[in-house]
Amino acid sequence: MRSDDTLEIERLAGEVRRGDPRALARALTLVESESQAGRRLIGRLYADRRRARVVGITGPPGAGKSTLVDGLVRHARGLGHAVGVLAVDPTSVFTGGAILGDRIRMAAHAGDDGVFIRSMATRGELGGLSRATDDAAAVLAAAGKDVVFIETVGVGQDEVDIAGVADLSLLVLVPGAGDDVQAIKAGIMEIADIFIVNKADREGADRLVQSIEMNLSLQTFGEHDWRPPVVKTVATASEGIAPVWDAVLAFAAHGGSAAARRRRGTESRLRRTLAAALMRRVEGTLPAHTFERVVDRVAAGETDPYSAADALLLQVLG
Amino acid sequence: MRSDDTLEIERLAGEVRRGDPRALARALTLVESESQAGRRLIGRLYADRRRARVVGITGPPGAGKSTLVDGLVRHARGLGHAVGVLAVDPTSVFTGGAILGDRIRMAAHAGDDGVFIRSMATRGELGGLSRATDDAAAVLAAAGKDVVFIETVGVGQDEVDIAGVADLSLLVLVPGAGDDVQAIKAGIMEIADIFIVNKADREGADRLVQSIEMNLSLQTFGEHDWRPPVVKTVATASEGIAPVWDAVLAFAAHGGSAAARRRRGTESRLRRTLAAALMRRVEGTLPAHTFERVVDRVAAGETDPYSAADALLLQVLG
Repeated sequence: MRSDDTLEIERLAGEVRRGDPRALARALTLVESESQAGRRLIGRLYADRRRARVVGITGPPGAGKSTLVDGLVRHARGLGHAVGVLAVDPTSVFTGGAILGDRIRMAAHAGDDGVFIRSMATRGELGGLSRATDDAAAVLAAAGKDVVFIETVGVGQDEVDIAGVADLSLLVLVPGAGDDVQAIKAGIMEIADIFIVNKADREGADRLVQSIEMNLSLQTFGEHDWRPPVVKTVATASEGIAPVWDAVLAFAAHGGSAAARRRRGTESRLRRTLAAALMRRVEGTLPAHTFERVVDRVAAGETDPYSAADALLLQVLG
Repeated sequence: MRSDDTLEIERLAGEVRRGDPRALARALTLVESESQAGRRLIGRLYADRRRARVVGITGPPGAGKSTLVDGLVRHARGLGHAVGVLAVDPTSVFTGGAILGDRIRMAAHAGDDGVFIRSMATRGELGGLSRATDDAAAVLAAAGKDVVFIETVGVGQDEVDIAGVADLSLLVLVPGAGDDVQAIKAGIMEIADIFIVNKADREGADRLVQSIEMNLSLQTFGEHDWRPPVVKTVATASEGIAPVWDAVLAFAAHGGSAAARRRRGTESRLRRTLAAALMRRVEGTLPAHTFERVVDRVAAGETDPYSAADALLLQVLG
């Protein structure tokens, strides 16, 4: 698609809005491509982004995130919601990185028109993955999905940012293996609006709940602040799914925190988009090979990255 | 430290060069702080960055990276090298996220002046972790460390970027648990200059080696290209450490690939630094509350992030 083809983009936006699955797939490919056409498509669709409830599910590999998402998809479908799933976790079953049993279970949604599953794998510009995920959520929302689940492994800055673009985040932990300490150390406690202790039939589940509660008790919550609840689940047995969904609704109903959360997500999203737009401008402005020559000088130890960046900035902006 | 205190920075640079451990610790804190003073310090020290061999060790949690680094530190010390360790993995034993036995083993280096260990935990600007890690490597190199090991979990864009700033990267995998598939899916095969199959005394080690070799055989290597070797280790028994080190030296001796690798790392480093410098400039130029008001408009669905970024760009650059 040529980036100046306004009519084509207008038509694709219309097809997405009508919920055409093939148009949806094409639109998602477009927003993953970091193209001008993708940006213009989002310009047409982003206003719809707010119409879907975007739920992030974060946690270490092996915590059972995919199974939990599977249960939540069933639950939301049972309530009549149209559902989208974005799998950002490279170890997710959705992307094929897991045992066959899980893959078969997820394939059960394949015949259901009300469920659209997509794995995200952009590895382009810095922050590209979280940008593309936010755009993809907007596309799914425009296509009429009421709920969008984003599954992401909670390790890495970009992955933490993805949790930030969701309207709320579930942090999934499991008993044993020192995962409680690990999660707390990784600095992802802060992104959790709801804690899930999955595999709660295992030994140590209550200790993990206590450890999370203890951590929360050290934080200061104002009278009107949302205090993250801790919900126990056994996702493989579909236990605890309804309480998780109820907690999601409770957070959404908790006006102040949900709005503040969304504002923070939007701010980091805009900052990232602005940085990318600036870089495109600068790279378009610099004379040919200028950037490459500066890279060579830094690599040779003739200058440092900061002085080099300042010199390039001076050349572009004056 | 005031950012205009040129004399102070000059003095600190001098103390780092003399290898003063307290100055080294202060310098590392400074470059982690995303401050003007830190950037100026790096301006003084970055030319030394090339003097150290910077080795990235990447792999999923539980692959035994810390134990392998421990073995490599001992080996390098035995050869008379001064060594620095930067632990970026939030689940690393260096940062306290693991069992006591491991922590005690690493503490064995505590009395050795030739080893400096530091954990990195910057969670600031996007790409801040890889920037800070590259700067920290430069500081350690200036302080006379011959070898700098960077331990990082290979999940997440910023973590992949960290592997990119190293002069070469070891990818550590372990038999079983579908880790072979997982690693290949995660898109981190590409960053490996040397593959390590750790816990090679376990069942499935040979199958994992074959799976890596199979994957490599699908790639095209030119006559003069480096083809990543696969080395088996049992890090807990210090087995296979010397062959790993020999592979590191072989890569360094393989001129073309090592230089190309370093150039790619420098390019991504410069791009990131330039983006951050641009953002500082823009945020310093915009009238008060302008950015916040635009965030509100995007959050309200009145505009999309791309159109908003373009409008801000127009306001700043014309």
